[in-house]
Amino acid sequence: MSLAETPAPIIFRSRHLLGIEDLSPAEITALLDLADAFVELNRRPDKKLSTLRGRTQINLFFEASTRTQSSFELAGKRLGADVMNMSVASSSVKKGETLIDTAVTLHAMHPDIIVVRHHAAGAVELLSRKVGCSVINAGDGAHEHPTQALLDALTIRRHTGRLEGLTVAICGDILHSRVARSNILLLNAMGARVRVVAPSTLLPAAIDRFGVEVHRDMRSGLRDADVVMMLRLQRERMDGSFVPSVREYFHFFGLDAAKLALAKPNALVMHPGPMNRGVEIDSDIADGPQSLIREQVEMGVAVRMAVLDALARNLPNR
Amino acid sequence: MSLAETPAPIIFRSRHLLGIEDLSPAEITALLDLADAFVELNRRPDKKLSTLRGRTQINLFFEASTRTQSSFELAGKRLGADVMNMSVASSSVKKGETLIDTAVTLHAMHPDIIVVRHHAAGAVELLSRKVGCSVINAGDGAHEHPTQALLDALTIRRHTGRLEGLTVAICGDILHSRVARSNILLLNAMGARVRVVAPSTLLPAAIDRFGVEVHRDMRSGLRDADVVMMLRLQRERMDGSFVPSVREYFHFFGLDAAKLALAKPNALVMHPGPMNRGVEIDSDIADGPQSLIREQVEMGVAVRMAVLDALARNLPNR
Amino acid sequence: MSLAETPAPIIFRSRHLLGIEDLSPAEITALLDLADAFVELNRRPDKKLSTLRGRTQINLFFEASTRTQSSFELAGKRLGADVMNMSVASSSVKKGETLIDTAVTLHAMHPDIIVVRHHAAGAVELLSRKVGCSVINAGDGAHEHPTQALLDALTIRRHTGRLEGLTVAICGDILHSRVARSNILLLNAMGARVRVVAPSTLLPAAIDRFGVEVHRDMRSGLRDADVVMMLRLQRERMDGSFVPSVREYFHFFGLDAAKLALAKPNALVMHPGPMNRGVEIDSDIADGPQSLIREQVEMGVAVRMAVLDALARNLPNR
Repeated sequence: MSLAETPAPIIFRSRHLLGIEDLSPAEITALLDLADAFVELNRRPDKKLSTLRGRTQINLFFEASTRTQSSFELAGKRLGADVMNMSVASSSVKKGETLIDTAVTLHAMHPDIIVVRHHAAGAVELLSRKVGCSVINAGDGAHEHPTQALLDALTIRRHTGRLEGLTVAICGDILHSRVARSNILLLNAMGARVRVVAPSTLLPAAIDRFGVEVHRDMRSGLRDADVVMMLRLQRERMDGSFVPSVREYFHFFGLDAAKLALAKPNALVMHPGPMNRGVEIDSDIADGPQSLIREQVEMGVAVRMAVLDALARNLPNR
Repeated sequence: MSLAETPAPIIFRSRHLLGIEDLSPAEITALLDLADAFVELNRRPDKKLSTLRGRTQINLFFEASTRTQSSFELAGKRLGADVMNMSVASSSVKKGETLIDTAVTLHAMHPDIIVVRHHAAGAVELLSRKVGCSVINAGDGAHEHPTQALLDALTIRRHTGRLEGLTVAICGDILHSRVARSNILLLNAMGARVRVVAPSTLLPAAIDRFGVEVHRDMRSGLRDADVVMMLRLQRERMDGSFVPSVREYFHFFGLDAAKLALAKPNALVMHPGPMNRGVEIDSDIADGPQSLIREQVEMGVAVRMAVLDALARNLPNR
Repeated sequence: MSLAETPAPIIFRSRHLLGIEDLSPAEITALLDLADAFVELNRRPDKKLSTLRGRTQINLFFEASTRTQSSFELAGKRLGADVMNMSVASSSVKKGETLIDTAVTLHAMHPDIIVVRHHAAGAVELLSRKVGCSVINAGDGAHEHPTQALLDALTIRRHTGRLEGLTVAICGDILHSRVARSNILLLNAMGARVRVVAPSTLLPAAIDRFGVEVHRDMRSGLRDADVVMMLRLQRERMDGSFVPSVREYFHFFGLDAAKLALAKPNALVMHPGPMNRGVEIDSDIADGPQSLIREQVEMGVAVRMAVLDALARNLPNR
């Protein structure tokens, strides 16, 4: 397999991938280029490389996530790593010390890469300072979810050939969304124009500092957009302050054919999944010709392989 | 290992294994012949082949099943596949769309084979129509459990040398049993004489169309049988309509020495597990010289290896 | 990797590792020597051997244990085994027969090694008599936890160069501790002087037969000790008979700087984890310069690799 044999240039400066915030545009581009090659690999019958042979990858999930964990598990296995899943009930990690004890324990087992999801913003960065290996942020609270933003960018770039100059509308529950935050950072870095579209109750107080156009109405927000990125309504994170019913929400902020018609013809429709069909997106749109939702999942495995591969190049190899 | 080196003829016409119903007698025989070779492999210290190297197998279990899932996991790993387990709480898949969304998501990760267990009859077939890879039914509701029937047939054939002309009594909870249904289809296809033995309340309404002799009394049902196949009493699927106590059930339909004495001398005793000892089968019989219950588990791994191998031969290999 | 190429002398006489009780001093020394080599391997980027290639290892945990199970999982994977985890809710194994049925079922799948943790003392030995493969005790009730004692011994030996003649104080919940029991057996066998330090309520009735000095006061118990081994207070196993509050317990039996000062200068501090910080050990001591707690975890993987490797040498290889 030629992928394994090509010389492997350094892509990251960092030992970890904690957030899009830490990546330069050149690093983002290099990761997407590498991911493109893995897309092709994953479509072949023999999807196995030995890039990470002898390496140990631990998936440490303090929040359950079938989709993201599976994606990282397959990515690591296809690169030849020994992959171990650890699902940790959040009840056993209430105290800060315990997160650190978990990190220190894992570190002592000599993993090369730890993939971490945690319900608290900043927890992954904290953990990364306690271990000697590479850490990948698979989502920390409402902070960042960098591989999601990378897979979204890869999906867009494969359809439009570029990110620069595109108008991308990110719609819905911006307040609770690490996906929105990482996408805003990435798209801004790459020269796209980013709009957020949400009711005031689902916008962060500091939204003015995000460098985005803010729309509170889908009609203005979607007008002439190249990409419409819907977010999952995270009802499990809401504390009752969010008043409208699901029906009302769909009426004003759900993506249906009428609203999508305001965007550019053939605008790309995206969703990070899992979808609440009929809440933030109409089923016909989700399954329609403009939807890239399935492709995003495919790109997810490729992007995670690229990140694992890139980080492995920075690991000591003596 | 010579198994891996032999030319691999096509065994199935189909891309999937959804039920015994879809298999011809020649296909069943070819699968059992292949499984025989894997029985020998599994008894060796080095049980590893590279038949599925680079292939991805996902075990998608909507119902917990330690035994069947373990059997498929070992089968895939021994053939060299990357195996990923996904246990999905049934609560999160109440809506039909979600099953499809799960299927579509998995498909986008480019697995080669998905092994599915689901609590609803027909769910596995529905899922198979949404994905491009091979699907194996590991049990869907009260519909089919084809690898169980194949492993039962392999167990019998290794002891008697044949299936044709044998009298097989399937006893107990026929109504809720996909095991019974798949076994009836297979044994009928292979020319065995099948009897079902159960109280009327545990017989399907349409039993007359199954092509079996129906007995409501163990004394007539077991008389001169070559094989006595006991079923697990699936109390968790019963809705209160089943009146008799466990004690009464055992008295009339549990397999004990007196009832077994009615069958042929050295009749084979089988049970798909896990057993309710003292409910459908007496412990002494379960552990006695005529019992093949342990051997059925061994045959299970071999049969699943045969099915995985056979399906892999039909996968595209460019 | 030279480890794999060296001739592999027989280390154990036994097919199983059920307890320290069954090991001779020469066997313990040979295991620790082998583990030393694995410590070096685990610190390398390529941590993969093929010692157990084609072998099947099943981790059968009737009690949850993230740390021990992970350690065995990584150990097996790094030696090239196919590793399968089975977590069994204790509710489904209330009856003795079911433990045996589980054993028999697993055995029929032809594993080479089963690693078992069970809440009942003696359950692992019982299981070992029902299967044809090797069984490793990963903790059975309050009976034994042999790999913990081996990793503790390895940790000590790497720091002091010996075990003979050392004074080791094992402190805290001796009553419920399989860790204490295995450590006492190992340290006595290797010629160390063992003290146990605990309140009377946390000492076994038969403590006089353990061949240890018994102290009910940390001041006498720690005096001039070379090693201070703290135990986890297993509140989940206590039935209300243990009266003092956590605060009182820490006051009298928790390891803090004042108590540690009574031991030898640079005495080694150990804890099997997970720690109750502020209950049996002060956080500053746990993270301080004398603490070997992180290193114990590292030694754990190496010791388990040594045990797996040693047992594999006794497996039939035709």
